[in-house]
Amino acid sequence: MTADNPQARPLLRFEKGRSKRFRAGHPWAYSNEVQMTAEVKALPPGTLVTLIDAGDEKLGVASFNPRSLIAARLLCDDWQRPIDEGFVAERLRKALALRDLLFDQPWYRWIHSEADGLPGLVIDRYGDVVVLQVNSAGMELLTPLIVQAVVELIAPKVVALKNDAPVRTLEGLELYDRLELGELSGPVEVRENGLTYFADLAGGQKTGWFFDQRINRAFMATLAKGRSALDVYSYGGGFALALAAGGATRVVAVDRSADALELASKAAAANNLKIETVRAEAYAELARLDAAKEKFGIVVVDPPAFVKSRKDLNAGAKGYRKLAKLAAPLVEPGGFLFAASCSHHMPVEMFFDEIAQGMLQAGRSGRVIRTSAAGPDHPLHPLLPESAYLKAMAIQLD
Amino acid sequence: MTADNPQARPLLRFEKGRSKRFRAGHPWAYSNEVQMTAEVKALPPGTLVTLIDAGDEKLGVASFNPRSLIAARLLCDDWQRPIDEGFVAERLRKALALRDLLFDQPWYRWIHSEADGLPGLVIDRYGDVVVLQVNSAGMELLTPLIVQAVVELIAPKVVALKNDAPVRTLEGLELYDRLELGELSGPVEVRENGLTYFADLAGGQKTGWFFDQRINRAFMATLAKGRSALDVYSYGGGFALALAAGGATRVVAVDRSADALELASKAAAANNLKIETVRAEAYAELARLDAAKEKFGIVVVDPPAFVKSRKDLNAGAKGYRKLAKLAAPLVEPGGFLFAASCSHHMPVEMFFDEIAQGMLQAGRSGRVIRTSAAGPDHPLHPLLPESAYLKAMAIQLD
Repeated sequence: MTADNPQARPLLRFEKGRSKRFRAGHPWAYSNEVQMTAEVKALPPGTLVTLIDAGDEKLGVASFNPRSLIAARLLCDDWQRPIDEGFVAERLRKALALRDLLFDQPWYRWIHSEADGLPGLVIDRYGDVVVLQVNSAGMELLTPLIVQAVVELIAPKVVALKNDAPVRTLEGLELYDRLELGELSGPVEVRENGLTYFADLAGGQKTGWFFDQRINRAFMATLAKGRSALDVYSYGGGFALALAAGGATRVVAVDRSADALELASKAAAANNLKIETVRAEAYAELARLDAAKEKFGIVVVDPPAFVKSRKDLNAGAKGYRKLAKLAAPLVEPGGFLFAASCSHHMPVEMFFDEIAQGMLQAGRSGRVIRTSAAGPDHPLHPLLPESAYLKAMAIQLD
Repeated sequence: MTADNPQARPLLRFEKGRSKRFRAGHPWAYSNEVQMTAEVKALPPGTLVTLIDAGDEKLGVASFNPRSLIAARLLCDDWQRPIDEGFVAERLRKALALRDLLFDQPWYRWIHSEADGLPGLVIDRYGDVVVLQVNSAGMELLTPLIVQAVVELIAPKVVALKNDAPVRTLEGLELYDRLELGELSGPVEVRENGLTYFADLAGGQKTGWFFDQRINRAFMATLAKGRSALDVYSYGGGFALALAAGGATRVVAVDRSADALELASKAAAANNLKIETVRAEAYAELARLDAAKEKFGIVVVDPPAFVKSRKDLNAGAKGYRKLAKLAAPLVEPGGFLFAASCSHHMPVEMFFDEIAQGMLQAGRSGRVIRTSAAGPDHPLHPLLPESAYLKAMAIQLD
């Protein structure tokens, strides 16, 4: 990538009367709002452009992708600002300051896309290990600058690119993983809520850690004392260990993946906590436990996204209802059910209703004591409330 | 009230095909879903009835109000259960157990209506002072039993009825305040998040304490260290003192009421914290502070309900936008704006959008780091998600 020269940037012009939403602060320009001339169509995906209104007013600098419905993603409303390492470093530094205010140890989502002013970029930090997910053509071109700025800001030992999200194909990007710095040998340590966990960034699972549930794990831990607990879709034992540390009398972690349960067990050992692990499919294990008349004071169901695209919505919604219907009977009277959805395409009201219906279909009444979203290291752009993908509810059952 | 005899209760019959929602777990029957015969129309408001389906199946016991659109409110799905002091005591005891799990001191909303199985009843507890708000005809008739059960369960020094909510008129109930037990002399102590506050239950304001913001005050306090803070609509200093205790360098509490600010100052003294109080109208004071080029690291705006009925929605929405537009300029770069709405009739998405728009109109960008609702002592009935009246967002501004 050659250095950005604001004066020499290609111009991307809004159609007359189509800039209103953008001018009101929305960070995207859609392909049907801008003049898709032959000239701009020929620009390589991710090219920096100066956005210009139909009346010639320059509105900012954006990355442009002629192949994407989201044609332009705003980087800065000052079009004269060069998008260079200094620019990227400033965004990274601001985001770092917020996280360092929020958390006492450097384990967090460092960059959360538009909300942190770097659209299409996600950075997770595990102490001195940094994992980038680049999901837009604009960020793909800026990746060398970003890596350089990350290295200069915090001098990490490892910088990894985890560029395998299917959303990249919408931007015309290839899927790949790559180490930019250092080596990954074995799982990395995760510190959260005073506990140590492990996440596999290099091995078979390669899914990292779900920092978004940190606040929810902390809340559920406050209810755990003296209760038994079941953590379904336990993954690396996130909820299971939080509940054990909160004083649960017995904790069972269920996952279909032996690798995941191994990480959970390793974490239990590291924290001197005891959990039982069960390798099983969630629905089947919930049904088996019910048939065996097992009861728990807390049941957590935190599945992977059931709704991966808009067309999956109805099937996914039924999946959440079924999950609640299977989980509710396992909760002892006065105990708690925690259910979450990380499906972008599942509206929050619909998720809450499906969980409520599933619980009622199981013949259980109760009260929702908390609804919540992702933790504060997953901020939202004020005009992209729909990017609040994580939804969670804690219910006390009668 | 004569003792409830399940066998002798009047029957309230659903119209054919109108019981589906109720049978799926919704706790209300609307007046157009049940047979409003001359016989049932003559029943005194609040009468206990056995709900019966068109096909003669008995569905539960409810309190009935022929004058209300919400004709029947379910008390128990076992129609044979007598609604007596034992019944009420059981509901109170369960709710008490949940609160005692959630909080380490007995200051909380003890009963939150439908979610705690006592529809139309709100009980706030301030240590050994208990304040009941009775908002349905059914609970009005049960009040003697409720007071008796409260006394037997926790032996309070004071039990007060604060029956002055306008919603009572929809139920055909008069507005009044009354002491059922003991005396109220001066403000009562409130303990929350490790601090002591004061609430006036007997004097001019008589509005009690807003326990619903406890979790939000605790969160904002984690951001306060080293920042100056402005708390607008401060009331008894709820946010102001939380921010001061969190390490704010300077805290200014604004309220239009001298009585409220006196409670805030009294609380500051009790906690050995320093706050400044300013008696002023919110909008005018925000504009004045901006004209004086004052900046704060944290600005809290937690107004009374702007939308008191559905017809006020547009005007109220504009009010929230204006509030954000006036407050945002006072937030220093990197600082935080916290805004809340306790308007039942204001949809959450609309509130978030108004705040975002107001902030953008003030020329400020930023990121929403947290959206939240009322604390867990304000639970929701799973099928009444719309009763989640409190909405709050914390935004970091650039």
